[in-house]
Amino acid sequence: MSTHPGSGAHAPSRYEQFHAFRTRLNERILASHGPRPGSVSTLNTRRFFTLDGACYKPGALDASTKELLGLVASMVLRCDDCIAYHIDMCVRSGVTDEQLWEAFDIALIVGGSIVIPHLRRAVDFLDECRLRSAPTA
Amino acid sequence: MSTHPGSGAHAPSRYEQFHAFRTRLNERILASHGPRPGSVSTLNTRRFFTLDGACYKPGALDASTKELLGLVASMVLRCDDCIAYHIDMCVRSGVTDEQLWEAFDIALIVGGSIVIPHLRRAVDFLDECRLRSAPTA
Amino acid sequence: MSTHPGSGAHAPSRYEQFHAFRTRLNERILASHGPRPGSVSTLNTRRFFTLDGACYKPGALDASTKELLGLVASMVLRCDDCIAYHIDMCVRSGVTDEQLWEAFDIALIVGGSIVIPHLRRAVDFLDECRLRSAPTA
Amino acid sequence: MSTHPGSGAHAPSRYEQFHAFRTRLNERILASHGPRPGSVSTLNTRRFFTLDGACYKPGALDASTKELLGLVASMVLRCDDCIAYHIDMCVRSGVTDEQLWEAFDIALIVGGSIVIPHLRRAVDFLDECRLRSAPTA
Amino acid sequence: MSTHPGSGAHAPSRYEQFHAFRTRLNERILASHGPRPGSVSTLNTRRFFTLDGACYKPGALDASTKELLGLVASMVLRCDDCIAYHIDMCVRSGVTDEQLWEAFDIALIVGGSIVIPHLRRAVDFLDECRLRSAPTA
Amino acid sequence: MSTHPGSGAHAPSRYEQFHAFRTRLNERILASHGPRPGSVSTLNTRRFFTLDGACYKPGALDASTKELLGLVASMVLRCDDCIAYHIDMCVRSGVTDEQLWEAFDIALIVGGSIVIPHLRRAVDFLDECRLRSAPTA
Repeated sequence: MSTHPGSGAHAPSRYEQFHAFRTRLNERILASHGPRPGSVSTLNTRRFFTLDGACYKPGALDASTKELLGLVASMVLRCDDCIAYHIDMCVRSGVTDEQLWEAFDIALIVGGSIVIPHLRRAVDFLDECRLRSAPTA
Repeated sequence: MSTHPGSGAHAPSRYEQFHAFRTRLNERILASHGPRPGSVSTLNTRRFFTLDGACYKPGALDASTKELLGLVASMVLRCDDCIAYHIDMCVRSGVTDEQLWEAFDIALIVGGSIVIPHLRRAVDFLDECRLRSAPTA
Repeated sequence: MSTHPGSGAHAPSRYEQFHAFRTRLNERILASHGPRPGSVSTLNTRRFFTLDGACYKPGALDASTKELLGLVASMVLRCDDCIAYHIDMCVRSGVTDEQLWEAFDIALIVGGSIVIPHLRRAVDFLDECRLRSAPTA
Repeated sequence: MSTHPGSGAHAPSRYEQFHAFRTRLNERILASHGPRPGSVSTLNTRRFFTLDGACYKPGALDASTKELLGLVASMVLRCDDCIAYHIDMCVRSGVTDEQLWEAFDIALIVGGSIVIPHLRRAVDFLDECRLRSAPTA
Repeated sequence: MSTHPGSGAHAPSRYEQFHAFRTRLNERILASHGPRPGSVSTLNTRRFFTLDGACYKPGALDASTKELLGLVASMVLRCDDCIAYHIDMCVRSGVTDEQLWEAFDIALIVGGSIVIPHLRRAVDFLDECRLRSAPTA
Repeated sequence: MSTHPGSGAHAPSRYEQFHAFRTRLNERILASHGPRPGSVSTLNTRRFFTLDGACYKPGALDASTKELLGLVASMVLRCDDCIAYHIDMCVRSGVTDEQLWEAFDIALIVGGSIVIPHLRRAVDFLDECRLRSAPTA
């Protein structure tokens, strides 16, 4: 979303920014000690994060189907970070581009044109994910 | 949602009510003539309905996966009629109860406890769908 | 939404039910005395209702355009009672069926197929509004 | 929402309908055996329900403040059943009418006029809750 | 949203950023070839984009009314990019500032104070649109 | 959200950016004269802002409870700027970290995992608020 013309240093990509912020704050939230007395998450917060992870474990539905379900839910609720996360997980689970575009279509028809700006960012993020996971020559 | 104590006639089930209203109004919306001059849907309305159907046709993803995607999208957006429709289609596509409950869990964790009243009605509707499709002795 | 088979009395139409409940509760909310000590709305509640009415008064935009704006906003946010209210007001403001269907299309494309069940109820309600306002022979 | 004119039997109030349906379906969802093989909720579903209950236990915030938080969250997300549940819990926790109306105002200003139909049903439900909990002469 | 202190180059305005990203990704989405085999949108994706455009063509409602409908829908659904797009189209269609503010008011009263941060960005974007379209001395 | 590597100047923190943009645009919106003829907000816009402020004044509920209600409403509706504003106000009203985390939990359980990215930014913003209000040695 932001480029940094004129700055000498390498600007982090959206993929790098997303993962860096997510990792830093997840560690902050799940830590047993916060920066101030009482500033830590509760047992319920941590249980929620654990349960969130558990719902995507393969069972009667396989992991890639569950990631697609999480992706479409995130698209119709229009959360860019959640969309980015599930696209990354779909790519890691072996979901193909053809499958992703058909899932995008269901998000688009259910959620409407208000989903389009998120679709644009999803496609851009997907292209970066594929580029990163491609074997270099 | 409503029972009719004291009424002599058979009260229609939610399954019957849902399909009767949906069929009557879809015919009204997609008809080429309305009850008044100019009271018909536009070409764009009818194109939207056609496109909606097309997005669930099997392709790189099979029909039952697409119905599950539509179901979870409907649950997190909390539309009882859409949930009922996709549960009915999941049942017809051969999705098992175990698979449906794992999809329910993803809708619940993504969408939160605000989904619970819709989950209750979804489970009640699912039980009615299974009962209707069960072979009679 | 509910019919009452077997009941001898005339069942109120959705139009009648909607207005009866709305009128009774608006009177309850805007009354200066409630059924119990302290059970009345605040000055802020009443200011909100007044401001709500003021936003639809004709100005740089005429009343029918404002009702259409309220209608489309209500459709994409999927509130059946708000949709019913603005359809009634559109009919009273002289909005034609052709104009309403084009507004429905914008709500449908922006909001997606999740709007369809509300569109069905909107069309059914519109037909009842037109029938009520039609001159009898 | 529905009255049953002409029916001889006593029609259940919204309070009774709400609790009867909620109790029956919660038992269905949390049961260890469903009506069909595999038709039971998962461990994750049951964990979600447990965690939901745990978040409202008194701690650094007391129970009535937590119920008010749940109420306002439910109002801006516009879920009638969730609103009814938290109003019932607020009444049981000793929240006064004056406090409830100020919470209603925050829901109204944050969530907008789209909340008004839910406010009407909330006020009607609150009046029924107070009537039920009032000492009889 | 972001300024780039200390960078020598001209930082693109929000208007320029919005259109550059939108144009690049729309071309990516609507292209017949993607960067990888299978990485192109489906026929349904492209139909959705076509239908989206068709709904705003003048008919029984003129183009500026339809853009205002799209704007208010986007504001209550709180999508900054959609708001920016429809403000740009309103300006191009000859909608006046007075008309835009009355439409903002309907979005604000329907959608509530949660719309305010989007209103701020909308006003800032509108000012930039007007500045760009103003004749230079 | 954005860092500016390689730029010589001090990059403003999110706290500074948030308040600078909010203040500038609130002044723009509430001003009696806009940059162009007719480009000012209406009386209704200004009434809405006034009413918004009035709803958080202490009454039957104290100011900190009302800020917590505004915070949880903002979290489940997922508006980062509204969340930032109410966290800042909670800190100024003397709400403790323990109380904030319990409010976060209610937002998380009601709103679901889609709230998590907003929780991350909320925690980051809270840490900055506390750091700014801490006495320097």
